[in-house]
Amino acid sequence: MTDSQSTTALRDNADVVILGAGPAGLVLGNLLHASGVDCVVLERATRAQVQARSRAGFLAANTVRILDRHGLAEGLRRRGREHATCEFRTEDGRFRLDYGGLGRGERHTVYPQHELVTDLLTRYLDTGGRVRFGTEALTVRDTDGARPTVTVREADGRTGSWQGRYVAGCDGRHGAARRSLPPGAVRRHHLDHGVSWLGLLAEAPPSLDAVGYAVHHRGFAGHMARTPEVTRYYLQYERGASPDAWSEDRIWDELSLRMRAADYGPLHRGRIVHRAVVDLESDVLEPLRHGALFLAGDAASLLSPSAAKGANLAVLEAEILARALIADLGHGDPEGLARYSAQCLEHIWRAQEFSGWMVRLLHGAPGPDGEPGFHDSLRRSRLASLSSSRSCQDWFAEHYVGV
Amino acid sequence: MTDSQSTTALRDNADVVILGAGPAGLVLGNLLHASGVDCVVLERATRAQVQARSRAGFLAANTVRILDRHGLAEGLRRRGREHATCEFRTEDGRFRLDYGGLGRGERHTVYPQHELVTDLLTRYLDTGGRVRFGTEALTVRDTDGARPTVTVREADGRTGSWQGRYVAGCDGRHGAARRSLPPGAVRRHHLDHGVSWLGLLAEAPPSLDAVGYAVHHRGFAGHMARTPEVTRYYLQYERGASPDAWSEDRIWDELSLRMRAADYGPLHRGRIVHRAVVDLESDVLEPLRHGALFLAGDAASLLSPSAAKGANLAVLEAEILARALIADLGHGDPEGLARYSAQCLEHIWRAQEFSGWMVRLLHGAPGPDGEPGFHDSLRRSRLASLSSSRSCQDWFAEHYVGV
Repeated sequence: MTDSQSTTALRDNADVVILGAGPAGLVLGNLLHASGVDCVVLERATRAQVQARSRAGFLAANTVRILDRHGLAEGLRRRGREHATCEFRTEDGRFRLDYGGLGRGERHTVYPQHELVTDLLTRYLDTGGRVRFGTEALTVRDTDGARPTVTVREADGRTGSWQGRYVAGCDGRHGAARRSLPPGAVRRHHLDHGVSWLGLLAEAPPSLDAVGYAVHHRGFAGHMARTPEVTRYYLQYERGASPDAWSEDRIWDELSLRMRAADYGPLHRGRIVHRAVVDLESDVLEPLRHGALFLAGDAASLLSPSAAKGANLAVLEAEILARALIADLGHGDPEGLARYSAQCLEHIWRAQEFSGWMVRLLHGAPGPDGEPGFHDSLRRSRLASLSSSRSCQDWFAEHYVGV
Repeated sequence: MTDSQSTTALRDNADVVILGAGPAGLVLGNLLHASGVDCVVLERATRAQVQARSRAGFLAANTVRILDRHGLAEGLRRRGREHATCEFRTEDGRFRLDYGGLGRGERHTVYPQHELVTDLLTRYLDTGGRVRFGTEALTVRDTDGARPTVTVREADGRTGSWQGRYVAGCDGRHGAARRSLPPGAVRRHHLDHGVSWLGLLAEAPPSLDAVGYAVHHRGFAGHMARTPEVTRYYLQYERGASPDAWSEDRIWDELSLRMRAADYGPLHRGRIVHRAVVDLESDVLEPLRHGALFLAGDAASLLSPSAAKGANLAVLEAEILARALIADLGHGDPEGLARYSAQCLEHIWRAQEFSGWMVRLLHGAPGPDGEPGFHDSLRRSRLASLSSSRSCQDWFAEHYVGV
């Protein structure tokens, strides 16, 4: 007797079945639910796990406007901190860009993503939204038909299925939505930037009052303020190496060296509470729709973390998708759904273009621009332009904060 | 009895021996001669050949200012035409950038390079400057010593040598200056953009009142006004193919197709009087000095023709080198010569960065940004930014005209 025979198959339905309780899925859920659209969020993890997932925390001005527009910004308005300065450190010196006074004059709000997710989840549940935690989506079927179906496995091993009129794949790069796309239905554009980062969370106050980007011959190092008690650091890292390969002392020594702590002040050291290796990769699926299945967030496009655009795109896409679904389900107007993919792809490619530019700004020799020496000199020139040319600074500011 | 034994060895000298009578060599010659520095220009070709060499003709505002400052801009002021518009055509439509009203508000002056060279040569000779036409520099020797020597071969086969205190290598990418650098003395950074252009001169009036850049799935096509009677066109072309592989009809048909003549008006066809295949390549030598030998123009750095920066950099470098030589030879101040390489390299890398951006803007899939699909979408996004974002337009204008 196999597991599947032993379980009771569950069947349930909702007009929109949302896969994944990240920023994309929860913004979408909130907007649909507030408009009276029948929806459910299926999430593999538990509520506690969802609320503890550590991710980036830089919200663009447009992201805050979207959340504000829908009454979802209360927490970040109260606890988020405005941020509008970044500092570049090189072996030649350092310079600061107060990007809040450049380009369109927009700022970031620093608000850890798990707090945003907690806010979104709380609001959604408090207003009666449905979430199934511990429910793993396995496949999405019949996306060409009128009743697409998501097969699921509950935490207790029982399998089941959800039928909907539409399925929103907000379940990331390894989720069921991507996995269920038939071969050839959707094209995946992929770019491996050829570098990896060790992402770190340290129980330590920030070491500078700016985002810090250090470009060093030993590799990139990054500093991102998060809260007064916890700071995020990045270290360019050997691809394939274990995140635990380096001792805490070695990590702090290497960060200090690359960030030139001897010249510009020591780093506030602390216990490293989280480590993960990220390979800098980008991909874009095209189109972002397959029949009744729509992709948003990391399921739609994976961005290198170099410009912290992922969550911001996710929120933007969720709003576009919510409007389109509300128009279709509420008023029988399918126009927005027809435009969804093209509309999002325009934003995605612009973000990819900027993120790629940042990757090439911050790394010694990732390869794509020619031989190491050529690339390295271009990078130095790019930094020199950024430090001195107002039009370059305006362009940077607009694209750094903008989504 | 060999040739070399049969000839009479000539020996001559000048404080500065300039190799090459292109824009770099002739600006340098004029500036040195006007300041009373003893110099000579050695040029392999005849005067008629030098004055007939067809090259680009887009002079940046800063180039015009430099030439003006030294009384060398009379001809271009009289016969050059101001230019400040470019038009991008894609398969989705077209848009114009009046870059004279963007960025720093600077314009190009269109003035065919052979006319500029003719002006510079005439002025130099009329004021008593020395040029040796038909004199091919073979090697530059003893650049570490006090009396570097250039060995030459005259048109009649006689060999000889010129001694100087300094040698200025303004003799291009295949010249004696580059060839004479000892292995390891100077590093050559090289980047092959992986695409080639067929450059064409047509006896036909311009077909549009702007520089035209057509981005098409069949390949890039370019249109550059030159004079009311002669227009320059470019066609992305198979690498390694003979410039004569295509008939004139095929060339005009292909240009018309890529430039969407059916939608935006026919091209003015005419006899094609010059063809050449250019492989889009970039290189930079570093440093630009080896002992008493200084490099300028194409000998210093080769730029892809995508942004027409070559002659503009050459003029800028010639002015910097002239000032440094005058300070050293006139007042015993070697500071400018010591700074020459670093100062020029800053400009060169900035031009390389912009030229590379243009290459990636204009071509389907030159490779460096990832797989074709990824790159192609980035390129479309780059064009979309350029058509819509003011900060992107300002950045473009500043770097397109600026040197």
